[in-house]
Amino acid sequence: MMRIDILTLLPEAFTYLNYSILQRAQTAGLVDIHLHYLRDFATGRHRITDEPPFGGGGGMVLKPDPIFTAVENILQDHQVNDHPLTPSPPHPIILMTPQGRPFTQSIAQELAQHKRLLLICGRYEGVDERVRQRLVTDEISIGDYVLTGGELAAMVVVDAVVRLLPGALGAEGAAETDSHATGLLEGPHYTKPANFRGWEVPEVLRSGHAGQIARWRRQEALRRTWDRRPDLLLTAVLSEEDKWFLGQLAAGEA
Amino acid sequence: MMRIDILTLLPEAFTYLNYSILQRAQTAGLVDIHLHYLRDFATGRHRITDEPPFGGGGGMVLKPDPIFTAVENILQDHQVNDHPLTPSPPHPIILMTPQGRPFTQSIAQELAQHKRLLLICGRYEGVDERVRQRLVTDEISIGDYVLTGGELAAMVVVDAVVRLLPGALGAEGAAETDSHATGLLEGPHYTKPANFRGWEVPEVLRSGHAGQIARWRRQEALRRTWDRRPDLLLTAVLSEEDKWFLGQLAAGEA
Repeated sequence: MMRIDILTLLPEAFTYLNYSILQRAQTAGLVDIHLHYLRDFATGRHRITDEPPFGGGGGMVLKPDPIFTAVENILQDHQVNDHPLTPSPPHPIILMTPQGRPFTQSIAQELAQHKRLLLICGRYEGVDERVRQRLVTDEISIGDYVLTGGELAAMVVVDAVVRLLPGALGAEGAAETDSHATGLLEGPHYTKPANFRGWEVPEVLRSGHAGQIARWRRQEALRRTWDRRPDLLLTAVLSEEDKWFLGQLAAGEA
Repeated sequence: MMRIDILTLLPEAFTYLNYSILQRAQTAGLVDIHLHYLRDFATGRHRITDEPPFGGGGGMVLKPDPIFTAVENILQDHQVNDHPLTPSPPHPIILMTPQGRPFTQSIAQELAQHKRLLLICGRYEGVDERVRQRLVTDEISIGDYVLTGGELAAMVVVDAVVRLLPGALGAEGAAETDSHATGLLEGPHYTKPANFRGWEVPEVLRSGHAGQIARWRRQEALRRTWDRRPDLLLTAVLSEEDKWFLGQLAAGEA
């Protein structure tokens, strides 16, 4: 079973994790998710977790002490202070931050190999730099946009990773053909009714010819990727037939 | 006041929207967020919203009828069927899908200009292609990874957009200096204590020299972007002094 710890100032905002595939994965014992309230690890009467930045400027910065204390408590047996000397610590300690490496499906696959993950959600202006330098082993960003905190980013990582655990997906879908899982965007899907307001489902999908359907789907996935995200074609695994079809698209003949 | 409608099969998974800046923006009357349960718009005794795809294969596809009915009900006065003829419909109807245009801070800024947004959350294998072709006006993806549905993506868009509404940010931070808001990653932040476990805050930040601090922060933002995301430098707005500093970095002299 995988274990995921999440350190946050908003543990109550994570109810998304209790539904759908994430709920079933937890019930089935595939993953054990623990939410930790950062304030519980702060000291003093007011349990302060943030302070204004040195040097002035707006916003608040998360203090180092409560985060170090929390991580040390959560990963009891892990020698946090040794981390600069151990390039492969036993468990990734990941700071969710817009300055991190951009999250992709291949990073999700990489993280899904670990037995345990600890995600730290930044908030406000960010976290004290010493957390970045001395405590975490990885930093991840889910995209080039500004969010209020790392909570949504942590939920995105958990969702993407847990889906990849063996047994997590039920009847809802096969992970292999999803957009980005193949390195291509998916092509069109159609379901009932065959005629909706005069707009018909393509004949080939109702033909029953499995080979033709598979070929059409592959070509439509290539077409959509070519149209919308040609950058993905640089890294996708392509067959000779795929390349021929892309040549047809490039020549305006498909 | 901006209005945001979200169409989903999991309205109960959106509690994130009730906290922090999003909560305050709603309380302050800056934004009005409505969650709509897709199943309420399905017909028949079982209110079915999804069916297997034409052509076979795993997974389920969201049927077109409940989505069209829902959108037509939500945007009563909006002539949905005219949409192919009206390239600038009054309100964006946005499908959250991995096949959409990649979400960025500039798209958040673009969306924040609208009075009203309607976000449709896909689930399972996706939505019937006719929704894409005939109903929506935009498609957005929050990143190149596979999620269980569009719910987290919708929350990301709402969070990024609502932060940009005038008055949404209180004392927690100024939107202009955030990573990606300037086109650069932010540099380090430090807060108390000045010495934490022997690791000290840089002298310049405790100097009180506002000019030196501003210069150091700009240079550290440039350094971090150069180190981690040099791709962002292609589109960032850079001064002559910024370019000089990047030249120093490139020469290994800074």
